[in-house]
Amino acid sequence: MKFTKIVVAALAVGLTGAAMGQVVGKAEDQIRWRQSAYQTMAWNMTRIKANVEGTYNKDQVVQAANVIQAIATSGMGALFQPDTNAGKGWRETNVKPEFFKPESKDELGKIAGAYIKEAKEMASVAANGDAAAVKAQFGKLGESCKACHDKFRKEEKK
Amino acid sequence: MKFTKIVVAALAVGLTGAAMGQVVGKAEDQIRWRQSAYQTMAWNMTRIKANVEGTYNKDQVVQAANVIQAIATSGMGALFQPDTNAGKGWRETNVKPEFFKPESKDELGKIAGAYIKEAKEMASVAANGDAAAVKAQFGKLGESCKACHDKFRKEEKK
Repeated sequence: MKFTKIVVAALAVGLTGAAMGQVVGKAEDQIRWRQSAYQTMAWNMTRIKANVEGTYNKDQVVQAANVIQAIATSGMGALFQPDTNAGKGWRETNVKPEFFKPESKDELGKIAGAYIKEAKEMASVAANGDAAAVKAQFGKLGESCKACHDKFRKEEKK
Repeated sequence: MKFTKIVVAALAVGLTGAAMGQVVGKAEDQIRWRQSAYQTMAWNMTRIKANVEGTYNKDQVVQAANVIQAIATSGMGALFQPDTNAGKGWRETNVKPEFFKPESKDELGKIAGAYIKEAKEMASVAANGDAAAVKAQFGKLGESCKACHDKFRKEEKK
């Protein structure tokens, strides 16, 4: 419990720091940029998966994990300004309206804090661990992504 | 001259390393992922620009520079398999056919090596330098992006 509180507090500091900087982009830019950032992470999750299921290449796993860590700790919250609750970037946003409600703030903080923690750990395990450790951490990171998707993302239309 | 050769040699090693790992995704995935990675860098270039032109927030600049560095060193060459010379990701690819020709390899290596060098330096300057140093390095990094756009990217249709 205490650890969760620390993570949430750290995240709040991070968000405040980002909020003190410039918010950049129109709503359509912010939606396109966040869709791009998630897709860039999806590419790198796919790479890690291919490595743990096929021939393991440590350099490639480190590269992939570093991208995920950098994006996870980039202050992406700034791309979710209130006027981006609907609209189109590359495509219509999949974010649910609940994401922007004040009563979701605490839960979002916990979900984001857990995801940032697992992304940092992924980079650490990629650098120092073996394929089995990477596989285990990949599972934890995927769960931390899914926690937000299940709660705050509309089902994707194919 | 010697330095350029070292950079190109280092890049060649990097590309070989990436090539030894799994190539993931169909052509349409690779195009969408690379478009996403470039847009993610565009977001972060926009953030750095806003910081050097407005109120300077070091944390935000470090976050942004780290994303650019991680993507620049991620082995993105793997997203340019031969069958991605045409086709649609989020939109039709803007890459010129010359990009994929064997005679472009040396020039591409130099351009990519310079861009990776400037992206790493951007992260270092963001962590250790002041706003003026960041502004100067931002200019150099932008030039290294432009070198490839001028040569290998079709003009963007708005």
